[in-house]
Amino acid sequence: MDFSSFLTSLGTSFLIFVLLMLLFTWLSRKPGNVVVYYPNRILKGLDPWDAYGGSRTRNPFAWIGEAMSATEQDVISMSGFDTAVYFVFLSTVLRILVLSSIVLLPMLLPVAVTDDSVKSTTATTSNGTFNDLDKLSMGNIRRRSPRLWAFLIATYWVSFVTYYLLWKAYKYVSVLRADTLMSSEAKPEQFVILVRDIPLALRGQTRKEQVDSYFNTIYPQTFYRSMVVTDNKEVNKIWEELEGYKKKLAHAKAIYAESRRTGKPEARPTNKTGFLGLFGAKVDSIEYYKEKINELIPKLKSEQNLTLREKQQDAALVFFTNRVTAASAAQSLHDQMVDKWTVTDAPEPRQLLWNNLKIKFFQRQVRQFVVYVIVALAILFYMIPIGFISALTTLDNLKKLLPFVKPVVNLKALRTVLEAFLPQIALIIFLALLPKFLLILSKAEGIPSVSHAVRAASGKYFYFTMLNVFIGVTVGGTLFSTLKTIEKNPNSVVTILANGLPGNATFFLTLVALKFFVGYGLELSRIVPLIIYHLKRKYLCKTEAELVEAWYPGDLKYGTRVPGDMLIVTIVLCYSVIAPLILPFGVVYFGLGWLVLRNQALKVYVPSYESYGRMWPHMHSRILAALIIYQVTMFGYFGAKKFVYVPFLIPLPILSLVFGYACSRKFYRFFRDMALEVACHDLNQIPNMDQVFRSFIPPCLRSKELDDDEFEDALSP
Amino acid sequence: MDFSSFLTSLGTSFLIFVLLMLLFTWLSRKPGNVVVYYPNRILKGLDPWDAYGGSRTRNPFAWIGEAMSATEQDVISMSGFDTAVYFVFLSTVLRILVLSSIVLLPMLLPVAVTDDSVKSTTATTSNGTFNDLDKLSMGNIRRRSPRLWAFLIATYWVSFVTYYLLWKAYKYVSVLRADTLMSSEAKPEQFVILVRDIPLALRGQTRKEQVDSYFNTIYPQTFYRSMVVTDNKEVNKIWEELEGYKKKLAHAKAIYAESRRTGKPEARPTNKTGFLGLFGAKVDSIEYYKEKINELIPKLKSEQNLTLREKQQDAALVFFTNRVTAASAAQSLHDQMVDKWTVTDAPEPRQLLWNNLKIKFFQRQVRQFVVYVIVALAILFYMIPIGFISALTTLDNLKKLLPFVKPVVNLKALRTVLEAFLPQIALIIFLALLPKFLLILSKAEGIPSVSHAVRAASGKYFYFTMLNVFIGVTVGGTLFSTLKTIEKNPNSVVTILANGLPGNATFFLTLVALKFFVGYGLELSRIVPLIIYHLKRKYLCKTEAELVEAWYPGDLKYGTRVPGDMLIVTIVLCYSVIAPLILPFGVVYFGLGWLVLRNQALKVYVPSYESYGRMWPHMHSRILAALIIYQVTMFGYFGAKKFVYVPFLIPLPILSLVFGYACSRKFYRFFRDMALEVACHDLNQIPNMDQVFRSFIPPCLRSKELDDDEFEDALSP
Repeated sequence: MDFSSFLTSLGTSFLIFVLLMLLFTWLSRKPGNVVVYYPNRILKGLDPWDAYGGSRTRNPFAWIGEAMSATEQDVISMSGFDTAVYFVFLSTVLRILVLSSIVLLPMLLPVAVTDDSVKSTTATTSNGTFNDLDKLSMGNIRRRSPRLWAFLIATYWVSFVTYYLLWKAYKYVSVLRADTLMSSEAKPEQFVILVRDIPLALRGQTRKEQVDSYFNTIYPQTFYRSMVVTDNKEVNKIWEELEGYKKKLAHAKAIYAESRRTGKPEARPTNKTGFLGLFGAKVDSIEYYKEKINELIPKLKSEQNLTLREKQQDAALVFFTNRVTAASAAQSLHDQMVDKWTVTDAPEPRQLLWNNLKIKFFQRQVRQFVVYVIVALAILFYMIPIGFISALTTLDNLKKLLPFVKPVVNLKALRTVLEAFLPQIALIIFLALLPKFLLILSKAEGIPSVSHAVRAASGKYFYFTMLNVFIGVTVGGTLFSTLKTIEKNPNSVVTILANGLPGNATFFLTLVALKFFVGYGLELSRIVPLIIYHLKRKYLCKTEAELVEAWYPGDLKYGTRVPGDMLIVTIVLCYSVIAPLILPFGVVYFGLGWLVLRNQALKVYVPSYESYGRMWPHMHSRILAALIIYQVTMFGYFGAKKFVYVPFLIPLPILSLVFGYACSRKFYRFFRDMALEVACHDLNQIPNMDQVFRSFIPPCLRSKELDDDEFEDALSP
Repeated sequence: MDFSSFLTSLGTSFLIFVLLMLLFTWLSRKPGNVVVYYPNRILKGLDPWDAYGGSRTRNPFAWIGEAMSATEQDVISMSGFDTAVYFVFLSTVLRILVLSSIVLLPMLLPVAVTDDSVKSTTATTSNGTFNDLDKLSMGNIRRRSPRLWAFLIATYWVSFVTYYLLWKAYKYVSVLRADTLMSSEAKPEQFVILVRDIPLALRGQTRKEQVDSYFNTIYPQTFYRSMVVTDNKEVNKIWEELEGYKKKLAHAKAIYAESRRTGKPEARPTNKTGFLGLFGAKVDSIEYYKEKINELIPKLKSEQNLTLREKQQDAALVFFTNRVTAASAAQSLHDQMVDKWTVTDAPEPRQLLWNNLKIKFFQRQVRQFVVYVIVALAILFYMIPIGFISALTTLDNLKKLLPFVKPVVNLKALRTVLEAFLPQIALIIFLALLPKFLLILSKAEGIPSVSHAVRAASGKYFYFTMLNVFIGVTVGGTLFSTLKTIEKNPNSVVTILANGLPGNATFFLTLVALKFFVGYGLELSRIVPLIIYHLKRKYLCKTEAELVEAWYPGDLKYGTRVPGDMLIVTIVLCYSVIAPLILPFGVVYFGLGWLVLRNQALKVYVPSYESYGRMWPHMHSRILAALIIYQVTMFGYFGAKKFVYVPFLIPLPILSLVFGYACSRKFYRFFRDMALEVACHDLNQIPNMDQVFRSFIPPCLRSKELDDDEFEDALSP
């Protein structure tokens, strides 16, 4: 790729972004779109346009002002603590990159541009990745040049800036977490612990009696009651069927009401009873659904009773009347065999994965191991196709392989655009397929809560991204282009890797630019959800509930955002000293991301769970991992430059490991366990324990028909 | 070493053992020696000879019957739980070796002896380590022989026997620990937690107020009181000086009384006041010491007050009125910063290392790291001398290096004995120097209790033993003798190692025999303590207290015993298949050890601390480590035998790791933390909390002169 195609790519990206932003300004003004652009405010019962005293001054940049002026507490109250932690992550990386830029750009660019290694050697220009940008990179420095000292100092500067800001951020998040957790509003899950691996009950003892007597002995004063986990598969199926019919009934009724309004009262809606409503006998929908519902209600009730009585599992939720006891109980060993009566703090009711609770201790270990093996295989076998894709998707290769694209490609303008985007688009689509698969795998490990499963999936996605995209593209790209050299001398791999990194700088530059301009442009403008919403509204939705379902925004999905961001962090850090020009791109990526997502967090996305920042330690250690990759890369690259003072770089990775160890020793445990000092803060009001207990009953077991007393009886048979 | 010198060595060892046992029988009958052979019974207030209905039937083997018939509860009540766990370790290893012997000896010896690889190849006979025993070892099997299948099956048998018995033993110890801990007698330390890293107090708040208010907020119902740890260095010095003078005064008075009895009433004892009592003015001892004591008592009192008021440290002992709360508090995170208000369960008062309590969290980490580096260096630098020693201490080498020993060595009988013992004795003396040094290092890590420091030292000693003795001798011995082969072809090291192992079998056989016959013989007969006691009694001791001090036996010192035993376990396991003849030696070692030490535990040693079996997980994982070394060695050795089915051995080390992981997941945490189920068992009587509190006051701060109320005031100023 030459310099002009790089500029074209950049220009196109920017143009798309500007277009999308204007589209956003225009579309978000229309009252009909308000549910797409302000769903979070609507669901919270706020006036969509009256944010932060902005009234209706719909100038194109009003949202920027609003995003900037929103405080952390606004974010927490509108979008939850996890989202606030995600912004701490974004702003920490942003600060690292800004502080690095301030020193690196004025120091390194003049040093690089006034040397002339690129012109004088032929080796660098021959491998096809040379472009005018190389003059601004470390590649332009001659070997053994004393100018390399500037780059060595820069390497240290970036490292220390990262340590300082990461330490500050960890401390900040830790304090913020404590403040949020010690808030005087009682959160139901703070009074509950989750007990798994309950051993077999004694003869003549029900599961519930067993649990109650066990915890009553240990906590005679603070034990409130217990809820034995049941196998809800059957009852949940019936309940979902029932809910489905209820929705369909409402839908059919709305169609009928509409057709009566439009003057065709005889046209009652009908449907077929067979597969997908395409086959079978034609029936009157309203009558049919009513009948089905009447059939299912008693069935559900009897199944609920059956489930509560017969399908008790060896897991339970235990309720305490006291936050401190619950926090302390969740951390303490209860049985002398560690694999029995295992306790953890209970997650929020809405994010409990009920079906996982019954999985046994050692089965969880085995499942985890099997999942890791599957993920490792997935990472290994995706490596090959990605290597091929990055080697094949040059236009010259495409023309050779697919001769029929030649006429299209030969158009000058199109060719430049294609050349710029082709490899990156392949990569991005490729990565979009993965997260769902990884989330399913993580849930299969036996993890008890959604947020934990998301964290686990996010970790797997991170490893995938790092190994396959970053290392795969870097090594793959250079290995394909320098295969002949390696064949002759296998030991040259290290040198080739270090030499090959700067060659891929422009690839990654365009990737970053594409991600922030097009990615954040699409994010802000919400084109896709908007189109889907309008299509649904026009052709499918008949009832109010269906309409809400059509525009319901979902959550921020930081589980997949963080690995994507981490790829950018790693790329930018690794190239920060080699090609400092990447730093402004990184700054724009994280700056723009912070702005756009703050707008989205405040106005669009609705959090679907809350883990009180448990993601932070992972973000922290992954930034540190990126830093270590960068430090090792620099060690290799300085070695390739034959710089004799390269041993000065050895302390850096060691320092990073020590720093990471110190951080995890000082802060980590509070992100896993609740500190008693935090739990013992006074509550505004003594919580209604019955309400706490009720909030944990799964929806399929809740029932208006079931009387309260009956439920009590059913739960304590 | 040839076969006859091996037999001589064995015979000599056995002769020494028989002699020592007869000596024991004879000496232990004499009433004057009763304090040397039965101190534990005397201190417990029992009749020394009336053990287990044995009355005075002093037949030479009575002690064996008594050791055999003693139950586990006898051992626990006489010598503590840690000793009982040590016997579980001994009997587990014994069972592993017996079960292995039963299969391996009849299966492998006939297979080995009927092959003839040793005769047919010249390589094995030429390196000087060949002897008649080789015919009974795997070295006698031809390469690629199908007979190797028998040895492969034997490798699996030993592994599975070990897994099975280790699992059973871990479970057994775990249940035993629970039973002992849940006993209805209240142990003071079960009501106490140790708090370290207390942050700076608020202005105008004393340390004690700070601690009290902190724990009162979290545990309003169960908090009893706290004791702030003080810097006792000064007061302890004065106290020890005072105690020293008190002893000297009693000694002088006893001398004076004696001289008056013998008719020389004018001869009052005198001493010199200068260095070591050798220089300075001559004074009347009784007057001088009385004066000194009268000087020191008020000094001690004022220093006690000063210490309690001014020298408070940032650590404290916190007392609860409830076992469950204390157990739960010791496991819970208290402050959101993990390095503040760190809690652990309190050790027994007698084993608290007061000076370590004040060391800060991160300083402990740094100290630990520094100590590990020092230990690693020690291990590395001792490697070289040990390698030399094992290469030099052959008689031929000695004769070359020290020509003047030639006439001594040329005596046939002496020569055989020397040849048998020389290398082993050098090694044993060498190892005896180390444990003290390692214990000092472990205490310098900042560990709060003696038992923990002993465990840490024991671990270091284990690594030292394994690396320096086992691997050092095996590799060193073979490397020196086959240096020329390696010079020509460095890749042959693996083959040489695998070939060299059987060559060292006789060395290790003699080592094991020496250790059990001479080592346990000396242990049983207590010759050295006996001589020391009689010398002291005759020349030094004048008072009753001095006499008790002279025969006070100390504890079992399993901290250094276990690494020694582990060396034997590793040796016997590694050679179990290669030279199965080592198995009976191992069986005798652990059988005799079990017997002799059981006698000593019941009658001699007095436990100086109690950790309720916390050593067990380390013993367990070290046996497993020995097993893995054995499995890897076997893999190498089968490879050297060019056995094509050698990959069948690969699953074994993996299985061992999985087994170790499963064990530690299932059992380990209960050995670190107290299970609440165990803690919640009812107590016989509600403990006197004031007594519990008082038991934790260090001796130098206890004082008759200080009134109770004063002490209260002083502790809560």
